Amino acid sequence: MDFTLPDEHRMIREEVRRFCDEEIEPIAQEIEDEHRFPEEIFDQLAELDVMGVPISEEYGGLGGDTLMYAVVAEELGRVSGSVALSYVAHTSLASKPLELFGTEAQKERWLQPLASGEYLGGWALTEPSSGSDASDMDTTAEKDGDEWVLNGTKQFITNASEAGSVLVKAVTDPGEGYGGISTFIVDPEEDDGFEVTTLWDKMGLNASPTCEIKLTDVRLPEDRMLGDRGDGWEQTKKTLDGGRISIAAISTGLAQGAYEAAREYSKEREQFGQPISKFDAIRDKVVDMDRKIERARLLTHKSAWQYDQGQSVTKSSSLAKLDASEAAREVAEDAVQVLGGYGYTEDFSPQRFYRDAKLMEIGEGTSEIQHLVIGRELGL
Amino acid sequence: MDFTLPDEHRMIREEVRRFCDEEIEPIAQEIEDEHRFPEEIFDQLAELDVMGVPISEEYGGLGGDTLMYAVVAEELGRVSGSVALSYVAHTSLASKPLELFGTEAQKERWLQPLASGEYLGGWALTEPSSGSDASDMDTTAEKDGDEWVLNGTKQFITNASEAGSVLVKAVTDPGEGYGGISTFIVDPEEDDGFEVTTLWDKMGLNASPTCEIKLTDVRLPEDRMLGDRGDGWEQTKKTLDGGRISIAAISTGLAQGAYEAAREYSKEREQFGQPISKFDAIRDKVVDMDRKIERARLLTHKSAWQYDQGQSVTKSSSLAKLDASEAAREVAEDAVQVLGGYGYTEDFSPQRFYRDAKLMEIGEGTSEIQHLVIGRELGL
Amino acid sequence: MDFTLPDEHRMIREEVRRFCDEEIEPIAQEIEDEHRFPEEIFDQLAELDVMGVPISEEYGGLGGDTLMYAVVAEELGRVSGSVALSYVAHTSLASKPLELFGTEAQKERWLQPLASGEYLGGWALTEPSSGSDASDMDTTAEKDGDEWVLNGTKQFITNASEAGSVLVKAVTDPGEGYGGISTFIVDPEEDDGFEVTTLWDKMGLNASPTCEIKLTDVRLPEDRMLGDRGDGWEQTKKTLDGGRISIAAISTGLAQGAYEAAREYSKEREQFGQPISKFDAIRDKVVDMDRKIERARLLTHKSAWQYDQGQSVTKSSSLAKLDASEAAREVAEDAVQVLGGYGYTEDFSPQRFYRDAKLMEIGEGTSEIQHLVIGRELGL
Amino acid sequence: MDFTLPDEHRMIREEVRRFCDEEIEPIAQEIEDEHRFPEEIFDQLAELDVMGVPISEEYGGLGGDTLMYAVVAEELGRVSGSVALSYVAHTSLASKPLELFGTEAQKERWLQPLASGEYLGGWALTEPSSGSDASDMDTTAEKDGDEWVLNGTKQFITNASEAGSVLVKAVTDPGEGYGGISTFIVDPEEDDGFEVTTLWDKMGLNASPTCEIKLTDVRLPEDRMLGDRGDGWEQTKKTLDGGRISIAAISTGLAQGAYEAAREYSKEREQFGQPISKFDAIRDKVVDMDRKIERARLLTHKSAWQYDQGQSVTKSSSLAKLDASEAAREVAEDAVQVLGGYGYTEDFSPQRFYRDAKLMEIGEGTSEIQHLVIGRELGL
Repeated sequence: MDFTLPDEHRMIREEVRRFCDEEIEPIAQEIEDEHRFPEEIFDQLAELDVMGVPISEEYGGLGGDTLMYAVVAEELGRVSGSVALSYVAHTSLASKPLELFGTEAQKERWLQPLASGEYLGGWALTEPSSGSDASDMDTTAEKDGDEWVLNGTKQFITNASEAGSVLVKAVTDPGEGYGGISTFIVDPEEDDGFEVTTLWDKMGLNASPTCEIKLTDVRLPEDRMLGDRGDGWEQTKKTLDGGRISIAAISTGLAQGAYEAAREYSKEREQFGQPISKFDAIRDKVVDMDRKIERARLLTHKSAWQYDQGQSVTKSSSLAKLDASEAAREVAEDAVQVLGGYGYTEDFSPQRFYRDAKLMEIGEGTSEIQHLVIGRELGL
Repeated sequence: MDFTLPDEHRMIREEVRRFCDEEIEPIAQEIEDEHRFPEEIFDQLAELDVMGVPISEEYGGLGGDTLMYAVVAEELGRVSGSVALSYVAHTSLASKPLELFGTEAQKERWLQPLASGEYLGGWALTEPSSGSDASDMDTTAEKDGDEWVLNGTKQFITNASEAGSVLVKAVTDPGEGYGGISTFIVDPEEDDGFEVTTLWDKMGLNASPTCEIKLTDVRLPEDRMLGDRGDGWEQTKKTLDGGRISIAAISTGLAQGAYEAAREYSKEREQFGQPISKFDAIRDKVVDMDRKIERARLLTHKSAWQYDQGQSVTKSSSLAKLDASEAAREVAEDAVQVLGGYGYTEDFSPQRFYRDAKLMEIGEGTSEIQHLVIGRELGL
Repeated sequence: MDFTLPDEHRMIREEVRRFCDEEIEPIAQEIEDEHRFPEEIFDQLAELDVMGVPISEEYGGLGGDTLMYAVVAEELGRVSGSVALSYVAHTSLASKPLELFGTEAQKERWLQPLASGEYLGGWALTEPSSGSDASDMDTTAEKDGDEWVLNGTKQFITNASEAGSVLVKAVTDPGEGYGGISTFIVDPEEDDGFEVTTLWDKMGLNASPTCEIKLTDVRLPEDRMLGDRGDGWEQTKKTLDGGRISIAAISTGLAQGAYEAAREYSKEREQFGQPISKFDAIRDKVVDMDRKIERARLLTHKSAWQYDQGQSVTKSSSLAKLDASEAAREVAEDAVQVLGGYGYTEDFSPQRFYRDAKLMEIGEGTSEIQHLVIGRELGL
Repeated sequence: MDFTLPDEHRMIREEVRRFCDEEIEPIAQEIEDEHRFPEEIFDQLAELDVMGVPISEEYGGLGGDTLMYAVVAEELGRVSGSVALSYVAHTSLASKPLELFGTEAQKERWLQPLASGEYLGGWALTEPSSGSDASDMDTTAEKDGDEWVLNGTKQFITNASEAGSVLVKAVTDPGEGYGGISTFIVDPEEDDGFEVTTLWDKMGLNASPTCEIKLTDVRLPEDRMLGDRGDGWEQTKKTLDGGRISIAAISTGLAQGAYEAAREYSKEREQFGQPISKFDAIRDKVVDMDRKIERARLLTHKSAWQYDQGQSVTKSSSLAKLDASEAAREVAEDAVQVLGGYGYTEDFSPQRFYRDAKLMEIGEGTSEIQHLVIGRELGL
């Protein structure tokens, strides 16, 4: 047993943290206010060579493991939920499935530019009428000669408006249920009929684009199918395993950012003649923040480590996601409270974490769905 | 014992609710996005004759009681936290003290236009370095001949940028502690040296201006002192009793608005072949929302009723404020969750309630301060 | 609107409280340790004329209302959960249905001795395999000539071993579902075939007998049926409305008892040179106890008042029961914590409240069932 | 990084679990009801060679590490809080300090019989008037010639009535504060003046004796002082580090026991035509139990592992204790709820875990004190 983060991971953590503090943190609130996707940040992340942390070097990635990827995602979350969210959607949802399920040719064409950070990737599962219930899918792909023709609407798709490729789930075999779903690689620029119809204004995370996309007779050659026909749902389950680790990692980062702001403020702000950290009620809040973060991080690291060991992580990733997202919301909420009136203003970061954290309990499976998943794993 | 709201109160509730649904709700999100104070709404509220609900008809008010005022504040909160917040700051903080502590001449000159809704009022207690600890006041009022000269900075002052009068607390007798504080009526337009130095961008409630104001050699004649020299703190305590009922009422309204949105959505949204309200996990959330609101409203009405009976409400108003603000935050949080991805977008109201609710645990005494107040009342 | 408890109710509260403090409190722990039903206490309660508070004077009751009954139940709960539990089972479950649904002859024979406190009553609905799901009933009543023959097993029946009469639910018309259930008055002493087969040892409330009873060919004349054939379930719903108010009232009392113990201890116990009530962490616990009790009591009084007004209380009684039982558990838990090591010993009362309170979330409909009931009332 | 429990630890876990299931579980409730210390169990534990798990083989121990010790304590807690509590008091409080601070002669005479399980050990710090505030100590040790004469009263001392040795803290140098405290080895049988004055009846854990002891002119030779004069408090801090890991481990075990009972019951018990585990409200409770246990165990194992690495564990052990004890209480509470009426009876185990768990938030530093300790470590 060994609870020490490997040296290599600590080194990259330090490097990413330095970048985050110097480059991202100073603009973190501004890009939210402007609802602006910070392209320049992703260019720099590409230069840092972290846009493909868990992708093999062969395809332009860093060749790190899931644990290392989780460490990076946490660091990004610590300064900007938006950057972190676009980052993980790009990595675990849009890139990783290509490595796991793609052909050599697909990897070269589609994974290489993603892993090297040339452009961003997206992944489209959810639909307007099917949130938690993915089986109820309306998007179809019909065979027309050598081509697949896609039609449908996808909802809440991160990065779609900025992406160079989007993995789209569609029903190829109606009546086959989960077994009738397949995955297609769509190129938003080249493929006619792909349209971003809504760019959502949200409670938070506004520097990360959340899109509704419409597919109207999008014609794709056969080599755009990822894996085999009917594999779409099996791929999705595997992808969501990693996706949950991603959200767990961001959540831990959001909590850490909020905690640091609250801890520092509590030591500097004086009321009734002493730092407010000296009042039990404030101190206990900060202590419990630390506790919740420690728990969330352990669960996240354990699940990432299991993933790297080749173990099943369906349960552990779901536990980590459920726990870390709850922690993030609670910690951010208490951080706002510790800062009082100032915590409610945009001049201080806790309100941003408070807003961003709420999504973590919703995205990539709501907390209700996580309970369902874990319950199934426990044989309930 | 009688738990029925009087007919008169129910009638005004219905009238205000109709106005809220027709006039405020449709623009509630828009004014937040634009950070715009909706002057037109307050003009209409003046026409409805509710800008001075608990002020006697003699001075342009409606001559209602605190219970009726709480009912109105709740209704406003149900559609817009911003409108509600500006409304209660105007009524319980800026107008009521004039009625309670003003001379006949002061009431005619300053209360009349407030109660009739001619212009809005403000109230300035908090300072940059004294949030929860009001005794640590830096703003001074020095006697210079027949005039008082005010200097200092006040923080987080609702309505100051829109107000026709602001009640300002200042130290007239240094070294006397709480007994050295007095209250002054300031006219932001006429009185030189009054300046709004910051208009805060906040996590929510952006249609209600929150200001930092600077007072630089503001010269006031003697008849601008409210009550006697040194009465400032005693007035403050009495004012905050009513202020806490105000926040409790708004909080109940915020919770009610969030609850209604979640309940309706849960009955319409289908997943896995049935309305999501049929799933225990969702249903139980909605049920607990109802429970929390019922509790908060009972505590609020009881405190308002006690106020109207002439009973001390220091404890009951503090209990109501503490409880209702917690309820508002929790209910709004669960409402976002019930709506899932949609709940996180600005196209739906829960996110707005979620953001607005957090302030209720901070303004007019943080939850930590409420515990202190109640503890003192319990002899702890 | 009026939040004042009527004088009459306050007088009886004072009288019962005095009795509780003088006669019950001193033996409250002892009867738990000995698992002894305190017959002498119930004799004295009969002398105080409170064994039939909400039963009309015509049948030996006090002729009070439900609110008065709730006040008495709270006072009993404040000193002994066991006494309170046997008391409410006797009153709202065993006596009230006789008044509501009985014939004149039945009231004279069976209600009179109950209301006057001559003997105790019981009520038998739950069965070993049907806890929350009352529709799944195995106990049958078959007609044999002029007689009904009852067979079956009833579980968790309060008072059965001490009762002079027990109202038993049985299926008279199989296949009719809820409409096939009827109610019978059984005399445990006279009626052959009635047997108490288990007297449960419980986590708490051991001075109140909880029984498994077995009915083996219990033959009853026709006048032992309460109300009409098939009315059993409708009566049950009405009875449980009152039963929930009962549990809500006891719960409020348990919380009050625990709170008083904690508050007093916190003011006397010194650590680090001052009373522990001066530490935020302790003070805030005590403050929140007070808050939870205030809420629970308001909900309980409101529901009792509505019952007395002839309004439907299905929702309000369920809300009150759900809320007050949760409050009781949480308050008792914090009370143990405030007393620390001493709170864990039987020399102090908090541990007793802690143990007793847990049942309140289970008996007369678990909290899960209350959510179901309220959800239904909300149209979910 | 490696989250796998070593093979050796898993083997001993299996062996101890088998013993627990076969020998302890069947009598776990009975010994509580009888308030009986199960001497035979400890004899068997000695035969299993686990009475000195973290004590070196040289002195009769097993030579295991703290992690192994935590694993064993958890297993005991899973079936009996009482056995586990007496076990850890014996090991981490009474034996370990002898190994850490004793002379060779002391280890041979006092540690050998403890580590081999010949007799049980105790440790006496707390006093009637000093619970959380250990600095306020009244027990004195005065030098009289070559002897130390001890006088005072110690409160809540586990095992004292069954112990072959008790480590007693006493003030040797009044006025020196923490630096004036020293530790003495007392032999309850041989040393005149040692008396168990109270054997507490408690809410739970009644098979583990909790004693008040009185020391009246207990005369001890100089070689009964453990470590140097004035070292008592430094030793205490080090001892409590391990003590917190002990309580964390027991708590994890209590939670695990309660969880297993609830999970099994939920899969077997049917209501409304299906196992209750199929209802979200029940399933989610069981899922969250699993989550809380996973968190608590990770924190506990990490702290134990750090202890074994020679790292400071003041913070991590405090976090683990705080978190695991909270988890134990909450999990046990939910387990009772899942079993409903049956869960409240002594025929099922959840009620026992519910009662036992509460002490974990009190013993070896209340949760309030843990917050204080952690806050200090965080520089607050």
